[in-house]
Order: sequence, then structure tokens, then C-alpha cells
Amino acid sequence: MISVGIVGGTGYTGVELLRILTMHPNAEIKVVTSRSEAGKKVASLYPSLSPSLDTIFTSPDVAVLKECDCVFFAAPNGTAMQMVPELLKAGVKIIDLAADFRIKNSATWEHWYKQAHACPDVLQTAIYGLPELHREEIKNAQLVANPGCYPTAVILGFLPLLEAGIAKDTQLIADTKSGVSGAGRAANVPTLFSEAGENFKAYNVNAHRHWPEIKQELEIIATHDVSFVFTPHLVPMVRGIFATLYVNNAEISMDLASLYKERYENESFVQVLEEGVLPETKHVRASNQCMLSVSRPYSGETVVVLSVIDNLVKGAAGQAIQNMNLMFGIEEATGLLQPGLFP
Amino acid sequence: MISVGIVGGTGYTGVELLRILTMHPNAEIKVVTSRSEAGKKVASLYPSLSPSLDTIFTSPDVAVLKECDCVFFAAPNGTAMQMVPELLKAGVKIIDLAADFRIKNSATWEHWYKQAHACPDVLQTAIYGLPELHREEIKNAQLVANPGCYPTAVILGFLPLLEAGIAKDTQLIADTKSGVSGAGRAANVPTLFSEAGENFKAYNVNAHRHWPEIKQELEIIATHDVSFVFTPHLVPMVRGIFATLYVNNAEISMDLASLYKERYENESFVQVLEEGVLPETKHVRASNQCMLSVSRPYSGETVVVLSVIDNLVKGAAGQAIQNMNLMFGIEEATGLLQPGLFP
Amino acid sequence: MISVGIVGGTGYTGVELLRILTMHPNAEIKVVTSRSEAGKKVASLYPSLSPSLDTIFTSPDVAVLKECDCVFFAAPNGTAMQMVPELLKAGVKIIDLAADFRIKNSATWEHWYKQAHACPDVLQTAIYGLPELHREEIKNAQLVANPGCYPTAVILGFLPLLEAGIAKDTQLIADTKSGVSGAGRAANVPTLFSEAGENFKAYNVNAHRHWPEIKQELEIIATHDVSFVFTPHLVPMVRGIFATLYVNNAEISMDLASLYKERYENESFVQVLEEGVLPETKHVRASNQCMLSVSRPYSGETVVVLSVIDNLVKGAAGQAIQNMNLMFGIEEATGLLQPGLFP
Amino acid sequence: MISVGIVGGTGYTGVELLRILTMHPNAEIKVVTSRSEAGKKVASLYPSLSPSLDTIFTSPDVAVLKECDCVFFAAPNGTAMQMVPELLKAGVKIIDLAADFRIKNSATWEHWYKQAHACPDVLQTAIYGLPELHREEIKNAQLVANPGCYPTAVILGFLPLLEAGIAKDTQLIADTKSGVSGAGRAANVPTLFSEAGENFKAYNVNAHRHWPEIKQELEIIATHDVSFVFTPHLVPMVRGIFATLYVNNAEISMDLASLYKERYENESFVQVLEEGVLPETKHVRASNQCMLSVSRPYSGETVVVLSVIDNLVKGAAGQAIQNMNLMFGIEEATGLLQPGLFP
Repeated sequence: MISVGIVGGTGYTGVELLRILTMHPNAEIKVVTSRSEAGKKVASLYPSLSPSLDTIFTSPDVAVLKECDCVFFAAPNGTAMQMVPELLKAGVKIIDLAADFRIKNSATWEHWYKQAHACPDVLQTAIYGLPELHREEIKNAQLVANPGCYPTAVILGFLPLLEAGIAKDTQLIADTKSGVSGAGRAANVPTLFSEAGENFKAYNVNAHRHWPEIKQELEIIATHDVSFVFTPHLVPMVRGIFATLYVNNAEISMDLASLYKERYENESFVQVLEEGVLPETKHVRASNQCMLSVSRPYSGETVVVLSVIDNLVKGAAGQAIQNMNLMFGIEEATGLLQPGLFP
Repeated sequence: MISVGIVGGTGYTGVELLRILTMHPNAEIKVVTSRSEAGKKVASLYPSLSPSLDTIFTSPDVAVLKECDCVFFAAPNGTAMQMVPELLKAGVKIIDLAADFRIKNSATWEHWYKQAHACPDVLQTAIYGLPELHREEIKNAQLVANPGCYPTAVILGFLPLLEAGIAKDTQLIADTKSGVSGAGRAANVPTLFSEAGENFKAYNVNAHRHWPEIKQELEIIATHDVSFVFTPHLVPMVRGIFATLYVNNAEISMDLASLYKERYENESFVQVLEEGVLPETKHVRASNQCMLSVSRPYSGETVVVLSVIDNLVKGAAGQAIQNMNLMFGIEEATGLLQPGLFP
Repeated sequence: MISVGIVGGTGYTGVELLRILTMHPNAEIKVVTSRSEAGKKVASLYPSLSPSLDTIFTSPDVAVLKECDCVFFAAPNGTAMQMVPELLKAGVKIIDLAADFRIKNSATWEHWYKQAHACPDVLQTAIYGLPELHREEIKNAQLVANPGCYPTAVILGFLPLLEAGIAKDTQLIADTKSGVSGAGRAANVPTLFSEAGENFKAYNVNAHRHWPEIKQELEIIATHDVSFVFTPHLVPMVRGIFATLYVNNAEISMDLASLYKERYENESFVQVLEEGVLPETKHVRASNQCMLSVSRPYSGETVVVLSVIDNLVKGAAGQAIQNMNLMFGIEEATGLLQPGLFP
Repeated sequence: MISVGIVGGTGYTGVELLRILTMHPNAEIKVVTSRSEAGKKVASLYPSLSPSLDTIFTSPDVAVLKECDCVFFAAPNGTAMQMVPELLKAGVKIIDLAADFRIKNSATWEHWYKQAHACPDVLQTAIYGLPELHREEIKNAQLVANPGCYPTAVILGFLPLLEAGIAKDTQLIADTKSGVSGAGRAANVPTLFSEAGENFKAYNVNAHRHWPEIKQELEIIATHDVSFVFTPHLVPMVRGIFATLYVNNAEISMDLASLYKERYENESFVQVLEEGVLPETKHVRASNQCMLSVSRPYSGETVVVLSVIDNLVKGAAGQAIQNMNLMFGIEEATGLLQPGLFP
């Protein structure tokens, strides 16, 4: 049994970690921290967990967390980096669902996150936790930076094209759409039901923090600089990310369907759909699947890739548990093969 | 392993049965029938099932169904009664999620369902599958009539009051609200997104088929005639039933919270909430739980009970599997304790 | 031209007042106040107003407001009562969309609103602005307390029954449902899209501030004490109120459809639907209409009235403008007969 | 007074035409046809119209329509072309909201609409009714082809760039998102609330009928061939279109904000937003406005234009009435300056 601690269990990624972990045969929830809710039953904040969870929120305490085998940080950016060095020394394996360890270049990180990094040296040892790209490194990692939701959908969508050396001198475009839960549980006017409901809008068009994260990984895959534009939008639904990816490149002569199918044929959590079938966010809701389609519509000069995930599962908690499985040497898909919830 | 057949696997209760059964440790899906989709993969119609289900739809065939241990009917009203007698003879255990065997009085059934009943004699042997009310009979039943979604929420809400002999000479009122999936997957104008979205309405105010079903069971519990009014409403959400129940009865002197807690303390799927906590449909989404609160607001002359379920789980497929567990002598909660999906 | 001032123009009732007033042939918006947004264009906060409104938010200033013919308060409870006495002295006509002047008994008001009333004497001069009930008094009023959204729907629904002397010794029940905009534009977790979306719940079941307001008016109509239970619910839609009203009274022998039709036949904003037709909130969205149906389902012992309005129009801004029309002696329906927005 | 006939008044564009026309000071609704609803009151099908409309549906009859000054076709594709020649002969002015007269090349039309065109000669005389592009021709037209919803948003977004000679040798990309009402009122499974709600998907990725329509107009503007990719998506909201447009073109040195502002400064229904302000569909709901923003994020190599409209107003009925105003020589904005509905 892997004994698990969760720092910051009151947000949506926290409750989703708890939901999935209660069904995991090899994990046991030992501690769930929350400064504001300490002393309360977790299930009194999240009654959906009540049939299966008796845990009480406690204040975050490194001494207690040290006794866990694995600690997940589901806390705001800037929290994990304060506690990670000490936990690493204690031999704890760590998965940070926030952004503290995603960007290798600490100057870039500080520019985008508007604060000094507390442990730039540790940053270098963190592994970017996208198993389909960094599986072997994750197996040996003590610290995993769990990818953002948009980066997961976008990188998995571009990956086969970039590995195949396509898209060298072209602009990559990601037109991405997210459900409102991606904005978290903070009380803000723009995510009120009356504002976000029956509405569609773009946001952070000129600068979104997932841009440098995606760019970093695309360039690792491509082994060259990548020019990349990224437009996030807000969809009036709770869960789901949909990424529509465009690559202009008239000269592609290869069979893209085969390229994608071959690249992902051994993956448990990436499905390349049959020609003519298109992914929908509802098909992956509550599941750890990424569904992809690839086509070259109209004149054929542009490749259009569609990529969908559940932002809270493959885009956060599910992928974190996939990483935990890898880090602890158990079957990667353990506890993660429940079908999606439809309708 | 219980080998399972599902007749009518293309509707929402069908896909929900499949979702839950793929996670059930003692059941194995042997056959899923659909006249219209025969030959297609179930997962091509419902991609949410694709990671875990390879089954192909077949045309309904009694000879094949006879070889199952358990057959679920998730087909339109009037379908099961055509095939049930023969399957019973073959020793198959049957759970009908439609209405063919819910109402004991065949004349009443024929009045409300506007057709002749194909096997009124078999009707008498069917057990109404609400485990919290008929558990022992279900254990020995070969044919279970799975309750409707509204009846499940309403009966569980009134049950302790009626058993306690309260509400004898008063009018019972159930103001009920359902998500749109309760209307099924048929293409109709009133359940289009553009009609049902951003809208709230009542429907079938003067006559709803769940009325005689609820009345029958309330009178079994009360052991006397019951006067009962029932107003169903449509809510712009996919899943969930919320029942607000009113009993006018100034003389109730007992502690209602204790009455409810004691009645349900050994139930795995009914939770009576702490005083001051109110149920929300989102707290039981995708789970088999029913959550209840009871209060006597303002002057105290009226008891108000709130009851919530997921119409497709405790209101249909989950309860059907709970019944299967009882009928096959395995632990009642097997495969049904996953937490709800929040948010 | 009526020159109009609006105090508190940043909330949803404020923007709705502005939307309707820009289409009103006899009104001219002179001043819109907001402490927090002073100096900004109203249309920069609410771009939906941009084709027709150039007004700039200013800080609230009684000296400026005094120069208006009519001032609407669309501010939080407790705001209007601070400024109203001085404005009354200056001869300004006032319509308060908040609750400061709705309850005649100042002790009751202070109990429910948890603060001392700033001008209990003025309270006695205020007219409760439900034109269908107090039309003549409104015509002569200088200060109108605009009814709450639930009270409008509930009172109009019970009115003909109570005037007819029915429901004397019975319990009145109002099971009410509101769209999320009723909770206003404040940033709170329970009204986030991810919480209120795909969810249905009751709230304030044991005590809601609209209860004493409704009770006061029902007793004025009935001319006797009324026993009344009121259960509010939150619907995952932006606009709309739906009230389902129950009166248990076996002895009613009169033709209720005629009673309702006759009572409202000269009203511009109340429609009694044909038998068998049921109201939907979507049919009155963005319009000042209230639609009603009345029936006696099943055994006939209970009268069920359905009443729908748009909470921001007939439940707030539209009704306020209807009151303004009456107070200024112009045709009551002026500027308020636009059809609803469907779908 | 312009006497107006509407053919096919039962769909969403029909009811929207009626909603706006009842508020139009120069138009009078004379006849509304529907084969299926003939004899019924229009307001019994659409109660939202009930305060202002007494009209009865009649069967379509050319003899009656001939007596109108202006006939709108809000019927399925292929309907208008059967009746238009005779109405033209009778001197009636016609606005077709369907696609029969949008594409100049009849072979192209027949390829995309899978039927023979009934009057290819008349096709040549029709004017494409986008006033911001073809205003003078519309003023003199007898037959106007009202643009599709996507084409309106996309063409207005690309227009200034193409007129400026930019985007000559590059790929134009339109990633477009539509509310569900764009699919009309036909009962189909994919537009059921339970399917389209809490879901986001792309559709018709390889071929959408608006593609040749958009391409035709972009090439008229650019005066050269245009390479264009178009990906439509379905958003879980009722109304609204959001188009995200991409033009890769590193060499653009001009001030794009000024380019857009100058191009549209005299337009009543196109607003170019201030830098840093982004459009939202909710800001134009129920209004005839198109809101645009233009930016060059990240490296600056790609121009990103955001364009929003209400698909049923500027994307259909509102624009049709704007065309009617032009055709009858009255002020273009007459009856169309109501603010949007927010929230």
C-alpha cells in the first residue's frame, strides 16, 4: 500500500485526486491538508466523497507529510516549492499538480509566475510528468511536475507530427477551449454561473502561463525552436478540454492516420479515432483518456488535429496518479480504467 | 461470475448499466442487444466505454439470452413482458428497468400504459425492486421490477414518516424535479438543448405514470389509502432528481431527525444529512446514493423532506445492479461504492 | 421626459433597468452611480449596452440625485434608507428595488435584515409596488418599495384564491425555483458555474427573507392570518422564476380557471393560460409578463397554481418601470411590451 | 408601413424575425405561413410573442404573399427558389434567410446542396446581403440572399485585412464556435440537451456548407484566390457565434487596430473593441451587433481576430431586417438598436 498525502485538498484537483484514489487498490489516503478547513471532515466539504472517505482535514505539517510514501500538491502555485526540498530529503516521492516545477528555466518561470523560485536547483531534478513523452524518466523520478491541462491536450496532439520532423518552418496554432472548472474554486465574478453560463469568450489571448510550458516541451520533441500561438477560450460546461490544432504544411505526404495510430498504439490513455470519427469532451468525462483525430480538410494544405481530455483527470488528478503508478513500479493503468460518464 | 445480458443497450439506462457493470467484480457482460445497431461495436456508439468494452450489439434473441444468468431489460415499456415468460421458464433471473412489472393491478397498468398486458399472471410474481423496502423478497425473486426514478426518490423520502403512522389524514405532496436525461435518448423537440436549456417548466401536471406506482408503494407502507399529489418539473441539467416533499400535520411531536437516521442507519445507499445540511443533486451524481434531509420550517406545521438521487444510478441502473447483487446472494453494495463526480 | 437616476448601477438589476430604460420613450437616463466604478463608462462594464448608452458612472451624490425626477435604488439592502428622506424632501419620486421599504413592521424588518432601520417613519409612507394589487396607491405614491422576485411570482399566483375567500384554514405552500442571477453579481463559491451548473438544490429552507414579505401581502389580501411555507431552490439557468403553489382544500367548488381569468383580464402583464397549457420560464424571458396556470390534478383535493416570471424583469427592473409609469401618470405598459426572447 | 410576409415561421429564425418585427416602427406583419401549423395562433406555438402578436399561421400561398411588400423566407434550403420567380414578377421584395441564393455559381451550389437549382438565372440577380460589404447593391436589390451565421462573423472579421491587401499568400484559418440554436428546431439526437449539454465538439470538419459561401466573399474582397480552412464547433449555449481567425503573416507592419477602427467607424452594427478588451458572445446576445478585436500575440507572426455575433440576430433575422431597411430606403438601423440581454 502506498500511503498518500495531499496538500491542498479543498480545490477541484484535490477532490478529484480523492475521488480516484478511493478507488485505487494500492493507495491509502493518510493525510489531507487544508489550512482553512482543518478539523473538518473532508466529506462534509465534499459530500460526494461521503460513502467512502472518513478522513479529516489537518493543517499542513511537513513532519506528518514526511511519513507518507507519496505526497501530491494540489495547492496554489508557489506552495509546493516551499516544502518540497525537505520532503525530498526525507525520501518522499512528490507529484506537484501546480506549476512550480514545470519550467526548467528558472528565469522564465519567474517571469511568468511573478515571484522568485524558492529552489531553482531542485527544479533541475524535476521530471515533466507526461508519461507518453517521459515515461522512463518518470519511473526513476522522485519529483514529478504534473503537466497543466492545456499542455497535456496540446502536446499529445502535436507530438507525432513533431517527432516525424514535420512542422519545422511553420507556425503551430492551438485554439483551445476549457470547461469552467479549469479556473478552480476561487470566487470570481467572471466564473459565476450568470457570467460564464450561456456565454463563450477567449481570455489571456496575449499571454497565458501555459504557453512557455507547451513551447518548452514542443521544442524538446522537435529538437529545434518552435513558433507557437495559443488562444484559450472558456466554454459553458464544467469539465473538459478541447484543443483544435493547426499546422500549415502543404508538403506532408505521409499517412497521418497511421503515424498517429502507430505512435500511440501501446498507450492505455491515448486513443486515435477511426477516420471520420471526431472526439467530444463528453466521451472522456471522468476518464483518464485522451482522444485524438487527425485530418487534412479542404485543399489539404493544413493539418487539423483535434484533442480532448477531461481537464481534471488526464489534465490533472488522473495523470498525477498515472505518474504515481509509474514512480512506484506498479502497472501504469492501475485504478484509472473506469469508463467515462455519459451522458 | 454472473453472466449478464442487456436488452436495449442503446438508451441512457443501457449505457449506464454498461458503465457500472464494467467495474463490477462479479459480473461479465455477455450480450447487449439492439435491433437498430446490431453488428456495431457498443463502444462506437458510446465511446466513453471504449477503454473497457469490446462487446458488439446483437439482435435480441431469446435463445441467446436464455444462456445468461441475469438479463436486464433497458428497453421501452412493453418490451420485457413479451420475452420474460420464456426467460423465466429457462431459469434466468430478470430485472426490468422499464415499467412492465411495477404495478400489481393489471387493469391499472393497462389504464396508464394504454396497452394490454402480455402476462398479467407473471405480474403477480414480480417484486418491486426497492431494496430499502422489499429487501428480503428481492433476495428470493426471479423477476424484479426496478422502480422508476421519481418513485425511488419520493418513496425513500416519505418512508419513515409513513412507517411511523404519521400522515394518515393528510395530503402528501411531492414537488419533483428531474434532469433531462430522464426523458431518454429519443429525439423530441421539448428536450432539445435550445428548448430545455435556460428553461424551467412543469410537465404532466395532471397525470404522470409514476403517480400510480408511487401511490401503490406508499399505501403498502402506510397500510391505508393515501392521498397524494405529484408535480414533475424539468431542470436544465443532464442528471439528477430532486424531490421536495410536504406533509401537513401539526401534531407531529416526535424527533424526525432521529426517526430518519434510525430507519436508514444500516443502509449503504441512503444518507440522512446532519441538521442544517441540505442535499444537492451534484453530491450524488454518478453515485448510487440517496441523500435526505428533514425539517419543519417556519410555524412547524409542515414537514419538508428533501430527497436527491442520480436518476440514472439509484434511479435506474445502479439500483438494478443493487437488486442483482441481492438476487445472486453477493454483498449488496458490490461494485456500487464509487464516490460521486464533483464538480 | 422623466429624468432618471440609478443608484447602484453595477448589479444585474441595475443593468436591466438601463437596458429597458434605453428603449423607453419617456425616460432619459441622467445619472448612474457606482462608488467602485466612478469615472468609467457604463458600457465598458456592460458592453451589451454600448450601442445605446454613453453615460459615465459617478459617485453617489444626493445633490445630483435631487435634480432627477425619479431615482431607482438598485443597491444592496440598507443603502436606500440612508438617502431616501432627503430625496423625498426634495420632491423626487423614488423606487427602491431592494428590501428597505417592503415590510411595514419595522421590528419585523430589523429581525430579518439584522440592522436598525434608518427611517421607520418613512417606512409607513412607502407603497408596496405590486401594481396588480396596489395600483391606485402607487399612482399617488412618492416612495415605492418594489417587490422581491419570489414575492411577485407567489403573490400573483395566490391572489385570486385569497380574494375569493378560499384557503382560510389551510396551509399555503410555495415551492419556488430561481435562476442564478437572483443571487446577484457578488463573487461567491455556491454561485460559481462549476458549483451551480449541472446542479439543483434547495437553500434557506428554514428561513428566507422573502417569507415575511410574502406573508404580509397574503394577509392583506386575505384579511386574516395566513399559514405559509416557502421552499426556495436554485436552478442552473441564468434568468427565471418558477413558483409551484399548493392549496389543500377539498371543498372548492368554483371554476378556478374563470376566477383567474376574470381577475386578470385587464392586466397587461399577467396572462392566465388556456386549460392544459403550462407556463415555462423561457416564455417570459426578457419580458415583463407573468404567466399563470391553475389546475386540480388527481383527486382534486389540492389546487396547483404555476406562476412564472423573469426575475430581473417582472421580478425587478420591469416592474420598477411599470411603477414609474404609474407614478408619473403615463400609460402603465409604456416601454414594457417587447416580446420575450426565445429560444 | 411595409407589409411583411414570412414563409416558414415555425423555426428559430422565424420566431426571431417576428420578435424583432413586432418592435419595428415601419413594418406590419401580414402573413406568417406554416404548412404544419396552419390555423393555429403563432403565439400558441411561441408564447413569448403573446403580448404583441395575434397573427394566425396560414398555409403558404403565393397569391397571398404577392400582396406583401416584402417576403422573408425562413424556410429550409430549397423552399424559396420554388416561389421566388413568381413573387419577383409580382414586384415583391424578397429576403431569403436560407441558402438558395447565396452562391453565385450554380454548379457549386448544386454540389454542396445536393439538388438541382430551380432558377439559376435568378441566382445571378440576387445580392449577398452583407450590408457592410454590399450596401449600395442591396439598396437597389429586389432579391437579397441573407448571409449564413458563420459567414457573417468570419467575413466581417477578415474584411479589413483582405481589403488592405494583406494575407495574399497565406492560409486563412477560421476556428468557429456556435450555440446550439444554429442547428435549428429539428428533433435530432446530437442536439438533445443530454448530448449537447456539458459537451464541446467539432463537426463537419472536412466539409461544411458555409465554406464555399465564405470563400466566395473573401475572394470578392481580396480580388484573388484565397486558401481557407474552417472548423466549426458546437458550444453548450443556445445563442451566439464566436469566430477565432488566424492569419500567419510575419511582414504586417501596419497598425491593425487603426485599420479595423477606420474601416468600421461608420457602421452601426460593427464595434471594434479597445485594445485589451475581448468580445464575448453574451455581450451581443439578442442584439444586432458584431464585436471585433484584433491582436498579434507572442512573437507577432500571427494576427488573431476575434469576432462575435448572435447567430439568430446579426447572423440571421436582425441582418435580414437591416437588409429590408436598406431595400425600402429607410434608416438602416431602424428597429435594430435594442441593447443586448445581459446577463
